[in-house]
Amino acid sequence: MTMQDARMPEEGQSREIGWHKGYVSGSRPDIRVPVRRVHLTNGKDVTLYDTSGPYTDPQIDTDVRRGLAPLRDNWIIGRGDTEEYPGREPQPEDDGIRHTSPRGGLRNLDAVFPGRPRLPRRGRTGTDGRRLAVTQLAYARRGEITPEMEYVAIRENRSPEFVRDEIAAGRAVLPANVNHPEIEPMIIGKNFLVKVNANIGNSAVTSSIEEEVEKMTWATRWGADTVMDLSTGRNIHTTREWVLRNSPVPIGTVPLYQALEKVDGRAEELTWDVYKDTVIEQCEQGVDYMTVHAGVLLRYVPLTARRKTGIVSRGGSIMAAWCLAHHKESFLYTHFEELCEILRAYDVTFSLGDGLRPGSIADANDEAQFAELQTLGELNRIAKAHDVQTMIEGPGHVPMHKIKENIDLQQEICEEAPFYTLGPLTTDIAPAYDHITSGIGAAMIGWWGTAMLCYVTPKEHLGLPNRDDVKTGVITYKIAAHAADVAKGHPGAQDWDDALSDARFEFRWEDQFNLALDPDTAREYHDETLPAEPAKTAHFCSMCGPKFCSMKISQDIRREHGGDLGGPALGTAEIEAGMAEKSKEFAESGNRVYLPLAD
Amino acid sequence: MTMQDARMPEEGQSREIGWHKGYVSGSRPDIRVPVRRVHLTNGKDVTLYDTSGPYTDPQIDTDVRRGLAPLRDNWIIGRGDTEEYPGREPQPEDDGIRHTSPRGGLRNLDAVFPGRPRLPRRGRTGTDGRRLAVTQLAYARRGEITPEMEYVAIRENRSPEFVRDEIAAGRAVLPANVNHPEIEPMIIGKNFLVKVNANIGNSAVTSSIEEEVEKMTWATRWGADTVMDLSTGRNIHTTREWVLRNSPVPIGTVPLYQALEKVDGRAEELTWDVYKDTVIEQCEQGVDYMTVHAGVLLRYVPLTARRKTGIVSRGGSIMAAWCLAHHKESFLYTHFEELCEILRAYDVTFSLGDGLRPGSIADANDEAQFAELQTLGELNRIAKAHDVQTMIEGPGHVPMHKIKENIDLQQEICEEAPFYTLGPLTTDIAPAYDHITSGIGAAMIGWWGTAMLCYVTPKEHLGLPNRDDVKTGVITYKIAAHAADVAKGHPGAQDWDDALSDARFEFRWEDQFNLALDPDTAREYHDETLPAEPAKTAHFCSMCGPKFCSMKISQDIRREHGGDLGGPALGTAEIEAGMAEKSKEFAESGNRVYLPLAD
Repeated sequence: MTMQDARMPEEGQSREIGWHKGYVSGSRPDIRVPVRRVHLTNGKDVTLYDTSGPYTDPQIDTDVRRGLAPLRDNWIIGRGDTEEYPGREPQPEDDGIRHTSPRGGLRNLDAVFPGRPRLPRRGRTGTDGRRLAVTQLAYARRGEITPEMEYVAIRENRSPEFVRDEIAAGRAVLPANVNHPEIEPMIIGKNFLVKVNANIGNSAVTSSIEEEVEKMTWATRWGADTVMDLSTGRNIHTTREWVLRNSPVPIGTVPLYQALEKVDGRAEELTWDVYKDTVIEQCEQGVDYMTVHAGVLLRYVPLTARRKTGIVSRGGSIMAAWCLAHHKESFLYTHFEELCEILRAYDVTFSLGDGLRPGSIADANDEAQFAELQTLGELNRIAKAHDVQTMIEGPGHVPMHKIKENIDLQQEICEEAPFYTLGPLTTDIAPAYDHITSGIGAAMIGWWGTAMLCYVTPKEHLGLPNRDDVKTGVITYKIAAHAADVAKGHPGAQDWDDALSDARFEFRWEDQFNLALDPDTAREYHDETLPAEPAKTAHFCSMCGPKFCSMKISQDIRREHGGDLGGPALGTAEIEAGMAEKSKEFAESGNRVYLPLAD
Repeated sequence: MTMQDARMPEEGQSREIGWHKGYVSGSRPDIRVPVRRVHLTNGKDVTLYDTSGPYTDPQIDTDVRRGLAPLRDNWIIGRGDTEEYPGREPQPEDDGIRHTSPRGGLRNLDAVFPGRPRLPRRGRTGTDGRRLAVTQLAYARRGEITPEMEYVAIRENRSPEFVRDEIAAGRAVLPANVNHPEIEPMIIGKNFLVKVNANIGNSAVTSSIEEEVEKMTWATRWGADTVMDLSTGRNIHTTREWVLRNSPVPIGTVPLYQALEKVDGRAEELTWDVYKDTVIEQCEQGVDYMTVHAGVLLRYVPLTARRKTGIVSRGGSIMAAWCLAHHKESFLYTHFEELCEILRAYDVTFSLGDGLRPGSIADANDEAQFAELQTLGELNRIAKAHDVQTMIEGPGHVPMHKIKENIDLQQEICEEAPFYTLGPLTTDIAPAYDHITSGIGAAMIGWWGTAMLCYVTPKEHLGLPNRDDVKTGVITYKIAAHAADVAKGHPGAQDWDDALSDARFEFRWEDQFNLALDPDTAREYHDETLPAEPAKTAHFCSMCGPKFCSMKISQDIRREHGGDLGGPALGTAEIEAGMAEKSKEFAESGNRVYLPLAD
C-alpha cells in the first residue's frame, strides 16, 4: 500500500471528504490501474491498493449475468501467439449430473452462464510441434515487458523492468490464463506486497450460483488478491464459469476435486485421463492457477503413519489413497511433464500443493513434510524448464519457533519460487478463533518472505464460513500481510500507518475512519461511545476524556519544545475553547474517563 | 497449561464428560490449588490452569456483598512480621466527592462495601527503625519458601525451590499485598507460563459498582491472570474496595489517576503529598501492584516533540505536564526511595510504567523510549535494594522487525526483571481490530521472554469495551500467551494442543469443544453447520463430508503402515457403518463437501 500525495484526483472526480475509486494511467490508454483514493480533511490524498474491481466504480454498470469486460483481450490477441479453437464439449458429468444420480436430469441447465459466447484460446503450435509457451515467464525470459507487467509495476510502485526480472528469475508469478481476460493483473513474489487468498466454494446443492459470485465479490471488496474456488459436487463447472466471468482477481482451483466427483468420489478409480480431461476443461474456462499435489509419493505415505493427525490435506489424502490402492507412484508425478505442456499453452500457474503438510503442532516440520518439499523442489525445476510459472504451497500448523525453518528451506529447495502458506496456525487450542491463531503465524512467515497468505476463517475445523466469517478472515489476513510489508520495509508500506497515526494525533476522526482497513466497523465502534456528530471533531476521545487528554499535552509540548514543526497543530485557544465545550457535553452525556491502556 | 492424566478426579467429584473445578493439594491442608479438569470420552483427564476463582466452584457459595474468603490470612499472620493498625481515615475526596461538586453530598455512601470489617496490615517496625520488608522477594532472598511460593509451584508444575530462586533473582514477581488475602497466588516471570492482564474501570458516573465486579469475574472466567482497575472519577475508592474484596487474582492500579482526581484533574497541582497519601490509601486497601511513571524525566520530554504521536501514555503525559509546568524533576523520581519504603511494608509490587512508549509504528524504538528505559533500569536496582518486587512495562506500537530489540534491551538494562507489555500493535491501519494487530506482536514478544501481556480489545483507540470486547480481548491474548508458551518449550504446554489434536483426529467432537479455549463458541459454530446430535460423533466433519474424509484415510494408512500404535483407532467396520449411515443423513441434509483449506 502506498501513499502518493502528489497524485491529484482524476478529472470528473469530486473532492468531497471520504474515498472513491480512482485510476492511474499507464503508457497506453487501455492500462488503467484501479486505486482507492482517500480524501483527507487536511487536503491531502492517500492512494491505496485496490482489489475490489469494477464493482466499486459507480461509473461502471456491472451485471453478473453479462460478466466483466475482457480488458486483456487486446493484449492477448495482440501477442499473436494464441489461437481460438472449438474446445472440449462440456459433459453433464462436469456438473456432477449422472444418470445414476437420483437428482439427475437437466434441472441445472438454466444456470448455464448467459454471457457473451466465447471460444477457448491456447498457444499456437510451434515449429517444434509443441504448443507455444504463452506464459508471462516465457515473455520475461525473452526480455519482453507485457502490458500485464506494466500494470502490476504501477500497482506496486516498481519499475516494469524490475517486475520482468523478478518473473524471469522465477521469484514472482503473474497468474493470468489467456482465457481469463477479465482480470486486473497482480503479482505474487517476496519482493512485492504480500498477498492474501480467500477460499469460496459451493457447499450445498441448494446454494445458488449467484451466492458464490457474491462471496467472491465480497472477499475482493475487503482485499482478497486472489480467490480459490473449491466448489465440489453439483454445478461445479457452471459455478466456476460464473465466478470466472465475474472475477477481477485471478482464480485458483484444485482440479483433483472435480476429477474425484467424475469418478463418484472413489479415489482409487481416478486415472490420468480423467484428471487430464478435467485440467483441460478448467484451462479452457480460464482458471489462473491450479493446486497440484504431485509431491505425494508412494514412499512418503508411510512416513505419516505415526503422526498425531496423519494427512489433513484433502488433495494429499486423495493421492495417498490412490497410491496405496494401486501401490504405484502417483499419476500426477509420473505425468508431470505432460501436465506442464498443457499449462504452458494457457499460461496457467502451478501451485504445487503440500499434500503432507502438518495438521497439528505436534506434526510440524516432520520427515513426511520435508520429504515432500524436496520433491516439490524437483517439480519446480521441471515446470520452469517448460516455462510454466510456479509457486509452492506451505503449512498449516506450526509453532512459532519452527516457522522460519519452513520459509528458509522452501526458498533454498525451490530456488526462491513464491511461497504460499495456509496460516500457519501457531496453536491448536482455539477452534473458533483460528483466524487469530493463524494470523499470528501468517504475519511472521510473511515478514520472513512468504509471498501469499491463504486466509483462515473463524469457522476453520468447525464448519462453513458465512459472509461475516469471510470478511473477518480477509481483514485478519490483510492485517498480517500489511504488518509483514511494514516489517520487510516494503517501499511506502508504512506511509499508510503514518497517515492514520497523523490523523489520530490531530483528532481527525473522519480521516481515521476513512483510512481504516474497515471504515464501517471503526466508525460504528466510535459512535457506540460518542454518537454525537460534534464528537467526530472533538479534541479528545473517549479514552482520556475532556478533562485530561494526553494528545493535547503532547501538542502543547510540541509547541513549546518542537519549534515550528509545521502541520496543523491546533491553536491553544482553539483547543481550550473546544475542550471547555466538549467537557460540558461530555459531563452531561454521563461519560467519564476510560483508559483501555495499561497506564 | 499442563496435562496430568495420572491425576484422578477429587473425591466426591463426578466423572461425567465435560469439565469441572478441581483442586490439587499441597503440603498443608490450606494449600488447595484450583484446576480446570476436563473429562474426555476416552477416559482420560486433562488438567488445565484455572484463573476463574471460587465463582466456578458449585460447592462454594459466593456473595459479592460479602467478598471472598481471606485464604491467605493464616499465612500472612503466621509469619508474624506484620501488624494491624487503624489506618488512614477515608475521605470524601477518595470517592471524588467535593463540596464544590454539583453532584456532591453523600449519595454514594450506600455503596460502601458491606463485607466484614477489617483493619489494614503492614510490616512491623524493625530494629533499624524501618518498616520490615514483608515481600516475597525478601523471604526468597532469605531462602524461605512461603505457602504462596509452594502454591504457584503446584500451579506451574515447578519445584518450590525453583520458584523461590526465580523470585530471589528478581526474574519473577509474586504480587500479593498483605491486605489482599483473598487472592489465589500466581507468579509472573519469563521462566513461567506467560500471563495475561485485563483492564477494567468505571467509565461512567452511572455505571454501577457491581458492574465493575462483574467485569472482573468475567475477565478471569476467560483466563485473565491479573486485572488492572483503571477507574477514575467518582466512586474510585469504593469501586476498588468491591473489586479487591471479590477478586481471586492480583489487582493492579495507577495511583496517579486517583491523585489527579484529588486535584480536580489539574496535573500541575499534583504534589508528592497528595500522591503519597493516595498510594498509602491503596496499599491499605490491598492493591497488589502499582504502575508508577517515575521514568519520565524533565530532560526526556523534549525528545517527544518531534514524534508523530507524542506521548500516548496517560500517566506519562500527566508527569510530562507536571515537569513542564514546574520545570522541575518528577516528584516520582525524586521521592522514589521513600515510595520504596512504603511499598515494602505491604508487599506491593512495582510496575514501572513506560510513560514515553511509542503510540505509533513511526515512533517505535526511538530516543525518548529508550532513554526512559535506562532510567527504569536505574529505578529497578533501587527498588530491589529495598526488597520491593519489580516488573517493567513495555510498548505499545512496534513493527515486527523492531520487537525483539525491545525485550532484549529491557532484559539487559533491567537485569531480567519481568517485562510486561501492551501488545505491541504491529500496524496502525486497523482500528476496530487492534486485538489482532497487537495479538501478533504479543505472541512474538511473549515467545522472546516477555512475562505478562496486557490485553487490547477491539475498541482500542475508539471507545469503551463492553462485555463481549473484554472476552474477545482476553481470548485473543490467551492465544498469544499459549502460542508463546509452546514456542518457548514450556514444560507441558504443548500437551494441551496434543490433547485437542488427538480428539480432532479421532472425531471426538465433544472433547474438542470441552478442550477449546472457548468451548461455547466452538460448539455453536459447529452446530450451525451440523446441528444434529449424531454429527457430534460422526466420523467425518463438514469440511470433507461423508463421501471423502482425509482423517479416515489417515486412519486406514495408520492401520496399514503404522503397525499397532495403540490408541483407540476406529475399526474399519465401525467407520464404514458410521460413514454409510452419516452419508445418508448428510445427503438428506443437503450438505455437500466444503473445504476451508487451500487444498
